[in-house]
Amino acid sequence: MINFTVGPVQSSDAVRAVGAEQVPYFRTPEFSELMLENERLMLRFAKAPEGSRAVFITGSGTASMEAAVMNLLTPSDKVLAINGGSFGHRFVELLELHGIPHTEIRLAPGKALRKEQLEQYAGQGYTALVVNVHETSTGVLYDIRMIADFCRREGLFLIVDAISSFLADDFDMAALGAGAMITGSQKALACPPGVSIITLSPEGVSRAMKAQRKCMYLDLRDALVNGERGQTPFTPAVGILRQINTRLREIEAAGGASSENESVAAIAADFRGKLAGLPFEIVSESLSNAVTPLHPLTASAYDIFTTLKDEYGIWVCPNGGELRDSVFRVGHIGALSTADNDALIAALRDMLRRGLI
Amino acid sequence: MINFTVGPVQSSDAVRAVGAEQVPYFRTPEFSELMLENERLMLRFAKAPEGSRAVFITGSGTASMEAAVMNLLTPSDKVLAINGGSFGHRFVELLELHGIPHTEIRLAPGKALRKEQLEQYAGQGYTALVVNVHETSTGVLYDIRMIADFCRREGLFLIVDAISSFLADDFDMAALGAGAMITGSQKALACPPGVSIITLSPEGVSRAMKAQRKCMYLDLRDALVNGERGQTPFTPAVGILRQINTRLREIEAAGGASSENESVAAIAADFRGKLAGLPFEIVSESLSNAVTPLHPLTASAYDIFTTLKDEYGIWVCPNGGELRDSVFRVGHIGALSTADNDALIAALRDMLRRGLI
Repeated sequence: MINFTVGPVQSSDAVRAVGAEQVPYFRTPEFSELMLENERLMLRFAKAPEGSRAVFITGSGTASMEAAVMNLLTPSDKVLAINGGSFGHRFVELLELHGIPHTEIRLAPGKALRKEQLEQYAGQGYTALVVNVHETSTGVLYDIRMIADFCRREGLFLIVDAISSFLADDFDMAALGAGAMITGSQKALACPPGVSIITLSPEGVSRAMKAQRKCMYLDLRDALVNGERGQTPFTPAVGILRQINTRLREIEAAGGASSENESVAAIAADFRGKLAGLPFEIVSESLSNAVTPLHPLTASAYDIFTTLKDEYGIWVCPNGGELRDSVFRVGHIGALSTADNDALIAALRDMLRRGLI
Repeated sequence: MINFTVGPVQSSDAVRAVGAEQVPYFRTPEFSELMLENERLMLRFAKAPEGSRAVFITGSGTASMEAAVMNLLTPSDKVLAINGGSFGHRFVELLELHGIPHTEIRLAPGKALRKEQLEQYAGQGYTALVVNVHETSTGVLYDIRMIADFCRREGLFLIVDAISSFLADDFDMAALGAGAMITGSQKALACPPGVSIITLSPEGVSRAMKAQRKCMYLDLRDALVNGERGQTPFTPAVGILRQINTRLREIEAAGGASSENESVAAIAADFRGKLAGLPFEIVSESLSNAVTPLHPLTASAYDIFTTLKDEYGIWVCPNGGELRDSVFRVGHIGALSTADNDALIAALRDMLRRGLI
């Protein structure tokens, strides 16, 4: 199978080799050292400001989204939430569940956030903004610099879910003045799913340290305190954390986050350049390098997903809910080559020839 | 390294081979089928009654302990909590955090729960009982039949954390009338850490379905509803769930849960039989097959852990907190042989010869 989903994605041979090893005992100085290196490299690749921290949560990206809402926001906040799809909707649900006052800015599927939509909330006492910088469900990359400018002017604490964007698109936590950034092991980090990561600016750390505990498992203060010595409060996914270490070192050796951005961008551009003549429309106004969301003009998106899986040995990423039949996505993260793109394009052209699309 | 800790433990070759594979996309009928098989086998090995369910949480055992407290108990409950060590203490902390009325039965380290200690709480309106059937920190296996009898007579909903005991000691959820059982991937299931599992009796399912949502990530109703079709609400640790599938099938092929119990018991008995002449005392009044907790009479327990790690290539399990210098533990779960026991005994005898113990 060739995997063009947006997670889990394909891992490098070195990462997979670690997956075959026995998982070591972890309450040791050796594992602490590895975790401290993971934290250093994550902060470097996020371009986090001096005094930032990173914590590793054994759980999905949603676990870290919820940890951010529980630990970084309080009922005294007044939050703007950008909701342009299912992940934006999830942030809104989390704000509701945890009693955080908020206003939702709803966007139609595939639509970018425009400056004037945001500006109407200026000067109204908002204290924080949450955004999925890449709304993965529809492949829309928001203009994070525009959002960050607004937050800086208005004094808003900015929480960026960059789960599927981190390492695929440029991200500079210090320049943006972001308070928190969230990502997951199974996106451009290209490790198995099971770990999500939150980087916190000094203000983010300060918010977490003052938070009232709502959930033991998702308590960021506990994670920060244990992380000082390279440990976690509870048994983490040790194997995946070792794979993350291998991968972070690979990225570092290859030139760091910007080199990784460039290679994902090159794979994406190669694929998009080969789409000509296929009956698809790109549905996003503003693309991430991580994924190309396609609306098939002549067939059901879900049927295309199934046929590619069952007859061509290729996974693309289906959509759920309302977009199930109208949109599928082609990911560009993980260990993919232009030859893999060629294989997918050949399969799609064959489906065209067969009258399936 | 030979690993005698109580998690992560050593995995079989087949489980490790799965760890080297690319992680597949999971929103597919193929992965659903695997998950439904995982659920069936977990319920079979737990001897769960008809109508029971199992859910797989991407997170540590504590995540599932907290999910159980959040979803299966309410402020209308009145809970007895057995606290004989750090894991019992964790249950008490969770009950406090989530506002569940409770009474703690504190036991000294290494001590079993006696019937008369429990009986004094009869007829006082308790509605539930939480217990770590194997208090892993001190290696005490409680008399779960005695506890279950008490619960049945008193009409208490019984939540059993069997994290380190499941598959190592006999457990019969139906016969005990337990409402919930918790375990983790990295104990006798002998897979990498990152997944914990909750089996729920019909009454447990009913409690979960009626629960007020407190945490999206740890919402058991959501997990149960998605699990009906073999899926999870959020991206799970797909790789570890595939390893769990391999392992559950291995256990099934080897004769099921009781055969697995017997082999862990045989490894434990072999080790304990070889301890004669070494300056250690077993500190638990009531041993699990999973672990032998040892108090060294002549040296610091933590120093023994460090020397075995650094000079002999062997991990035993250190204790934290107050027991750091007085107790270390030798686990018997995971892919261990009597030859591994011989290697540990030889190392300890060598340390004795060198005057280190």
